Amino acid sequence: MTRIGYGGDYNPEQWPREVWDADYRAFALAGIDTLTVGVFAWAHLQPAEDRYDFAVMDAIVGRATAEGKRIVLATPTGAMPPWLAHAYPDACRVDFEGRRHVYGQRHNACPSSSDFRRLSSALAGRLADRYGANKAVVAWHVGNEYGGACWCPACGAAFRDWLRKSYGDLDRLNHAWNTVFWSHTFTDWEQIPPPNALSEHWRGPDHTAFQGITLDYRRFMSDALLGGFLAEKAAIREHVPTTPVTTNLMGLYQPVDYHRWAPHLDFASWDNYPPADPSPVRTAARMALAHGLVRGLKGGKPFWVMEQTPSTTASRDVNPVKRPGVLRLWSWQSVAHGADAVLYFQMRNSRGACEKYHGAVLDHAGRTDTRVFREVAELGAELARVGDAVLGARTPARVALLVDWDSWWAVEMSDGPNRHVRYLDVVTAYHRALWQAGVPLDVLPVTADLTRYDVVVAPLLHMVKGDLPERVWDLVDRGGSFLTTALSGRVDEDDNAFLADVPGSFAGLLGVRVEETDAQPPDVVNPVSFGGAAHDARHVFEVVVPESAEVLGTYGADFYAGTPAVTRAARGRGSAWYVGTFLDDSGVAAVVRSVLAEHRLVGPLADVPGVEVAERVTVAGERYVFVLNHSGSAVTVPCPAGGVDLLGGRAFTAGDDLALAPTAVVLLRCQ
Amino acid sequence: MTRIGYGGDYNPEQWPREVWDADYRAFALAGIDTLTVGVFAWAHLQPAEDRYDFAVMDAIVGRATAEGKRIVLATPTGAMPPWLAHAYPDACRVDFEGRRHVYGQRHNACPSSSDFRRLSSALAGRLADRYGANKAVVAWHVGNEYGGACWCPACGAAFRDWLRKSYGDLDRLNHAWNTVFWSHTFTDWEQIPPPNALSEHWRGPDHTAFQGITLDYRRFMSDALLGGFLAEKAAIREHVPTTPVTTNLMGLYQPVDYHRWAPHLDFASWDNYPPADPSPVRTAARMALAHGLVRGLKGGKPFWVMEQTPSTTASRDVNPVKRPGVLRLWSWQSVAHGADAVLYFQMRNSRGACEKYHGAVLDHAGRTDTRVFREVAELGAELARVGDAVLGARTPARVALLVDWDSWWAVEMSDGPNRHVRYLDVVTAYHRALWQAGVPLDVLPVTADLTRYDVVVAPLLHMVKGDLPERVWDLVDRGGSFLTTALSGRVDEDDNAFLADVPGSFAGLLGVRVEETDAQPPDVVNPVSFGGAAHDARHVFEVVVPESAEVLGTYGADFYAGTPAVTRAARGRGSAWYVGTFLDDSGVAAVVRSVLAEHRLVGPLADVPGVEVAERVTVAGERYVFVLNHSGSAVTVPCPAGGVDLLGGRAFTAGDDLALAPTAVVLLRCQ
Amino acid sequence: MTRIGYGGDYNPEQWPREVWDADYRAFALAGIDTLTVGVFAWAHLQPAEDRYDFAVMDAIVGRATAEGKRIVLATPTGAMPPWLAHAYPDACRVDFEGRRHVYGQRHNACPSSSDFRRLSSALAGRLADRYGANKAVVAWHVGNEYGGACWCPACGAAFRDWLRKSYGDLDRLNHAWNTVFWSHTFTDWEQIPPPNALSEHWRGPDHTAFQGITLDYRRFMSDALLGGFLAEKAAIREHVPTTPVTTNLMGLYQPVDYHRWAPHLDFASWDNYPPADPSPVRTAARMALAHGLVRGLKGGKPFWVMEQTPSTTASRDVNPVKRPGVLRLWSWQSVAHGADAVLYFQMRNSRGACEKYHGAVLDHAGRTDTRVFREVAELGAELARVGDAVLGARTPARVALLVDWDSWWAVEMSDGPNRHVRYLDVVTAYHRALWQAGVPLDVLPVTADLTRYDVVVAPLLHMVKGDLPERVWDLVDRGGSFLTTALSGRVDEDDNAFLADVPGSFAGLLGVRVEETDAQPPDVVNPVSFGGAAHDARHVFEVVVPESAEVLGTYGADFYAGTPAVTRAARGRGSAWYVGTFLDDSGVAAVVRSVLAEHRLVGPLADVPGVEVAERVTVAGERYVFVLNHSGSAVTVPCPAGGVDLLGGRAFTAGDDLALAPTAVVLLRCQ
Repeated sequence: MTRIGYGGDYNPEQWPREVWDADYRAFALAGIDTLTVGVFAWAHLQPAEDRYDFAVMDAIVGRATAEGKRIVLATPTGAMPPWLAHAYPDACRVDFEGRRHVYGQRHNACPSSSDFRRLSSALAGRLADRYGANKAVVAWHVGNEYGGACWCPACGAAFRDWLRKSYGDLDRLNHAWNTVFWSHTFTDWEQIPPPNALSEHWRGPDHTAFQGITLDYRRFMSDALLGGFLAEKAAIREHVPTTPVTTNLMGLYQPVDYHRWAPHLDFASWDNYPPADPSPVRTAARMALAHGLVRGLKGGKPFWVMEQTPSTTASRDVNPVKRPGVLRLWSWQSVAHGADAVLYFQMRNSRGACEKYHGAVLDHAGRTDTRVFREVAELGAELARVGDAVLGARTPARVALLVDWDSWWAVEMSDGPNRHVRYLDVVTAYHRALWQAGVPLDVLPVTADLTRYDVVVAPLLHMVKGDLPERVWDLVDRGGSFLTTALSGRVDEDDNAFLADVPGSFAGLLGVRVEETDAQPPDVVNPVSFGGAAHDARHVFEVVVPESAEVLGTYGADFYAGTPAVTRAARGRGSAWYVGTFLDDSGVAAVVRSVLAEHRLVGPLADVPGVEVAERVTVAGERYVFVLNHSGSAVTVPCPAGGVDLLGGRAFTAGDDLALAPTAVVLLRCQ
Repeated sequence: MTRIGYGGDYNPEQWPREVWDADYRAFALAGIDTLTVGVFAWAHLQPAEDRYDFAVMDAIVGRATAEGKRIVLATPTGAMPPWLAHAYPDACRVDFEGRRHVYGQRHNACPSSSDFRRLSSALAGRLADRYGANKAVVAWHVGNEYGGACWCPACGAAFRDWLRKSYGDLDRLNHAWNTVFWSHTFTDWEQIPPPNALSEHWRGPDHTAFQGITLDYRRFMSDALLGGFLAEKAAIREHVPTTPVTTNLMGLYQPVDYHRWAPHLDFASWDNYPPADPSPVRTAARMALAHGLVRGLKGGKPFWVMEQTPSTTASRDVNPVKRPGVLRLWSWQSVAHGADAVLYFQMRNSRGACEKYHGAVLDHAGRTDTRVFREVAELGAELARVGDAVLGARTPARVALLVDWDSWWAVEMSDGPNRHVRYLDVVTAYHRALWQAGVPLDVLPVTADLTRYDVVVAPLLHMVKGDLPERVWDLVDRGGSFLTTALSGRVDEDDNAFLADVPGSFAGLLGVRVEETDAQPPDVVNPVSFGGAAHDARHVFEVVVPESAEVLGTYGADFYAGTPAVTRAARGRGSAWYVGTFLDDSGVAAVVRSVLAEHRLVGPLADVPGVEVAERVTVAGERYVFVLNHSGSAVTVPCPAGGVDLLGGRAFTAGDDLALAPTAVVLLRCQ
Repeated sequence: MTRIGYGGDYNPEQWPREVWDADYRAFALAGIDTLTVGVFAWAHLQPAEDRYDFAVMDAIVGRATAEGKRIVLATPTGAMPPWLAHAYPDACRVDFEGRRHVYGQRHNACPSSSDFRRLSSALAGRLADRYGANKAVVAWHVGNEYGGACWCPACGAAFRDWLRKSYGDLDRLNHAWNTVFWSHTFTDWEQIPPPNALSEHWRGPDHTAFQGITLDYRRFMSDALLGGFLAEKAAIREHVPTTPVTTNLMGLYQPVDYHRWAPHLDFASWDNYPPADPSPVRTAARMALAHGLVRGLKGGKPFWVMEQTPSTTASRDVNPVKRPGVLRLWSWQSVAHGADAVLYFQMRNSRGACEKYHGAVLDHAGRTDTRVFREVAELGAELARVGDAVLGARTPARVALLVDWDSWWAVEMSDGPNRHVRYLDVVTAYHRALWQAGVPLDVLPVTADLTRYDVVVAPLLHMVKGDLPERVWDLVDRGGSFLTTALSGRVDEDDNAFLADVPGSFAGLLGVRVEETDAQPPDVVNPVSFGGAAHDARHVFEVVVPESAEVLGTYGADFYAGTPAVTRAARGRGSAWYVGTFLDDSGVAAVVRSVLAEHRLVGPLADVPGVEVAERVTVAGERYVFVLNHSGSAVTVPCPAGGVDLLGGRAFTAGDDLALAPTAVVLLRCQ
């Protein structure tokens, strides 16, 4: 690659050929060099089980190749064609309510269906055989946004196989699930049903009588979906030895544990549709977290933004347009966090069905004189100008944030103490504080090597697995800082409580013992004093007995008024921090800044709200500093580094006045 | 008919004969001359498949005939008897969730069940054979409140037949539904399932992956229900050549397209249960709209109010009593809008089951000294006094409001831009402004002849079908005014986007191009300045590029501040107005008044809130002006016309002080 | 018994033997003398259909016996083992939505399953045979918290049998259900389906087209569940002639009519988990009501609190800890209202599954130095100190509150007038007023003997059955007072309206006629003046015509302003009060105090909010007065009786200053 990839999903099979010509004229105007083709193309690639038809795809690939575009070739298996569902009704999913679906929507195939597996893999192989040698094909894109779940009999059987492999015998399974409770001891594998509304659940997927079976089903389902990816990848690899194979992930997507998938992706990519939030600053932080998570999947290697919308989404209740400049701002933010390609869904608006109002580079009239097209084209030109400068560059982080799907699942399916505690709320609150502090940050699984970090933050790490406690002790011993929160360290990998003081294997390190866990409704606030100010705490209030920790923050109300809410234990050359409640943003920021300050890691623009500073450093050591103004207001800041702005062309010395319009982006090639 | 029909649903089969005697004494006191009998009588008319028993019905009809009442004879097919469901389980419906129901409730028969069709038609024929010659029978009332839907295999098959007839071949169907999107290309008719929660839908009936299939299913289901009506009507017509046949509609009822039904009704009738609204004025406008819609079904001919409650409903969460005077006010409002009969549900309170607390002319104690009975009787006397004066008279409207079920369905099942936009909210807002302006108004389908109108208002006309654009051009050319709103003109009859500038086939007429469609949550307001005032706009904000239109209103906020929100294009001798957002009541009123003012159509009491003026004109040219005070307060207004008040007896000259107590009704026979 | 029982649920089968040793050391520290064992033990008692294994239970029972504990021996049939569900899928329930469940959760057995009945009874018999002779076993505890419902075909058949027995023939059934309405006349028993979402219901269990069938299904299901209890009890009785048999009820639990169960319980017991309420005073009153209800089941005999949590629940959205002193306060409140045992769920926290965060005497670390254990142990010591003083003592009540499941069911499944009226809201409001007035109170079924009472309060007694009107006339004739409210006296035992003036059989006694029943949304308030003050009334406003009653309160607004809202009829030597609306707490209190004042029954601390006074009197006539401070504040009151405080040791003369800390408890042995 000689530049940041730019383009996106392109489905010309929906249009007559004269529209293709107009498309390519527009692509040229917009600096588009990368096209993702074939997503959802199954029906025309294989109009019947015994018939393939590559005529349309040949034309699409041929034209893109001839036009010099880089092609991302998708297998079309994200949506079955009608004939498949009709011939194999069991290839459709059974939902959480226990109902077999018939044909409709997309992402509708049972991952345990042998028919679907056979047919999808065969088609992937055919595509690989036909287009694998084409040099224009720079990547393979398997399926689409893997997700959802199935509870059909085939999945039930596959689940039992998975359990047999995981546990070996029923005694171990019964122990892991604590089935002695409520007389659930399984005496035959066949007695185990998929956990859903007809068995262990009530009030939905988060309410289960046995957390163990539900947790394992989520792990199993994540693996089952991965099985589909792997089968297609294997079929591709029979014909395509080296072109990288990926799939488009969805960032902070709860149903699939991307850490279980990561080893199998040749590079990571994801679709960036941040959830609606009236605050652009919170939205920016949310995207930064997701970029970090995806970058962390492959050990910090650059990733792709496989999709983002040029303007609106369509699937939400309310679908605003991106304000002027936001498309550019968010695209550069992607690059700042490690993206080496920034792609759109989609090149042209569909005529009908549920995405006809989803934004596109070209609208239904095909105009190139709209605001949206103009912004797309200006960004294309800018990306071309920057060329290969930052390609492959890495984020130089000394701070790690731990994210763990098992903890996410476990804490949200827990009966007690408080259903209002949501994993992402806590993780994003701690991330936001780190992000605003302007410190380079990696987002990592709990299995990651922590030896290169000074600070490790583990919010709401409900489940503690493997040797993590040892690695955290090591971190602290050698002078690092560890920070965790209420409801962390509660359960082992089977979601069973530690038969020890809370927080289990962290208790000794943190120097505290949690004797009681109070919970209150969302309108109840307990003021926590920390660092000379009072901060609102909510939801959960642990009554903490300090054993060897220093008390840095205390509750202001209730029968535990005056007892510890924030503690710090000096350990080895480092420190272990504990926050026994859920603080508001100011409280989280105060604690996080204190921890970062121990390592002088607070960034230069930490006190300028909504101005983001991010870095990438090339293998050769070239340093690029991005300054992004998400605040919505014009602001002048001291330039955080010296260098030349590759976008504006101006040179700055560190500390110079840097005037940032709303949505401004500065990309400094540092001297 | 020699007077406005008065009476209602009467089910004496629920009572012993001595109660019948009391009933008729009460009917005499209340001036009741019309009785609807037979609704839900199936179980006693046909106690088993092979046995009919007309003894009870003979007595009911005989007594009513002997008492000189006019009889509306209902077929009882709105509710199956248990034996039918038990013998033919497939006659029960499958619901949206895919579940086959067993026996219960009412309106419970699958419209595609051949068993139900056979049995219901046979019974209708038997009734017609037995009672068709009775001169007291003035109308036939088929079934009851047709509605709901079924998704059973029989409906699936009937749907595919309907599609075959509509599309001829699968290529046309695939094109119409844009199935190339998401690999949905159907290659065999049998692959097409009924669209519900098990196929294309999630989150309910308004969320579908393919709008095309769902839209067609709604059309099909409306036709399927109509099929049941038609089969019974045909059976009746074998024995009854001329007595009119109707069914009781439900006004603004979303699931059934009454415009598809209208040609098959001999006259229109409906059940007037306005939705709960704390504002009596809004409620009055809502009823006026529904009356107009029903009157519009048969080209402006008078209709019947087949049901209204004398006091309370029972089926709602909260069921208030009608305040004193309201029964009379609303009944006269019905007449003012074209009703030639005003009937109640019901004559006597049922003992048990779900309507035992539904209001009735006679309560459980059978008292005739209650407030409710007193008001019923006073109105009966008043109706008798007015006699045949207004019978058959028409509404002299020069303004038309277009209502379109396809647009209603399409806009509410659309993914994007904003789920908070509800069709009826917009239609009722524009109607309310027209109603308050006091202009005679017709409510019409989009297929209607527009040549007799000066102003046509088409709120939220999302779908544009047939030659409507030409008819609107004609209107404007000859000096008329056309007004439409945001999200109009977006899709063709298949719900596919026009491949052209928005608003599609209206763009040229309106002289604007909509470049972007922004959407915001309900709490976001953009102030629109129009006519010297600022009005709140919400939900959708189209970024409008004026091509040849004059800008009359502009946004006050966001990146499109200062751009057009309201435009007017001079076209031919007329004008074409566009409102690119959804305004509050004051904004809609300001725009609507401006349009009406172009034709001097604003009524004399337009500025007296809640006072309604309505007219009927007989074939002979006699003009009746109704003045109705819905405001809740006493008010004195200039009399809008000269004439004698048929209710109060006083004569007025136009402009005289007319003192209106709360709920006052004046019915002027104009000189 | 020589002391109030103390202990609770104990499941040592979940732990290795060394934990058992620790448990018994802790029990000794805490003064625990009673252990409930065997709940949910089925899987280890009977690991396969053809194999029983009593080894673990032998050890549990043997150890408890050896340690001198009193054993409550539970049959484990509250949860099926997996093998049972797998072998007999029909033993699983079909839910309200019509779906057959597979294995999961607990309370999961169909009560009509012959397989479940056979196996559960057999196991109960085996347990009785093996442990029935053990003198340490002081009670048998069948199943657990019977509840829920099933709608399977077997239940459908059992329902029809139940109906056949209840009605004899279909004519009587059709008349009772008023099936002539909506053509529902059943002509064969087999046509009657279980009423659920697939038949008569929409929007859930409270929305039914036919109240009659739904009401009967609730009665049937209550009886069907009772059938399971009775079968196990019979199996026990084959081996255990006299040890009392009970089950743990759930207080104000709507699905099961405990008055139908009461005759079959040897003593009553219940699980005290009051619903979350931010007001501790409301919570205290709620518990007092439930204690009273349970005590009323067995004619005032002492009952047991079979479960309460030492600290937190786990199953709620928010699970707070019990504040310091609350455990003691609530435990003594139980005793004050008639409990002769106060037990916990549970002795030790489970490791995993949905109750792992439910509070326990011993936490996961097994500590005995926690606040919770300390409070448990202190209470244990206190209970031991009091010894057998109050055992067997009764509450000397002259006031009765009537609670009726049929009315509860009927009013909440009624269509009209207002779904916001909830039975418990009204009953608890009237109870709260009585409770705060400090008057000894019995909570009784409508069939109870009323001859010993001076005041009978019957809030929202929608259904009137049997000879209750006669018994109420008798009460009033001999000088008593009767008080009832809006929506009372509306329907007979079949839920059919009385064909008479409202309130039916109470109208003559009350001297009023309700002519209209208005309903308004929750935000509409009508001020009712009574006793010199204005009180807010909501939801339902009856328009009351006084026939012979005196008007004591009137509406302040709406068209019925000035008409009666509260009336009193002098009858015989007594009085009959009617409140035709739903008043706020101050209004209810004003009316209730007026009624009590007629009999000088207002207690001495009635005006001290949140301070409860309760009495027990032994057979020998010893009087114990409990004073409990639920107010959350310290307060000094005049001592309501003279005597020695058995807890604090101090002697008081009536009228002495009694200083009550928050959560204070005083137990006076009166002189």
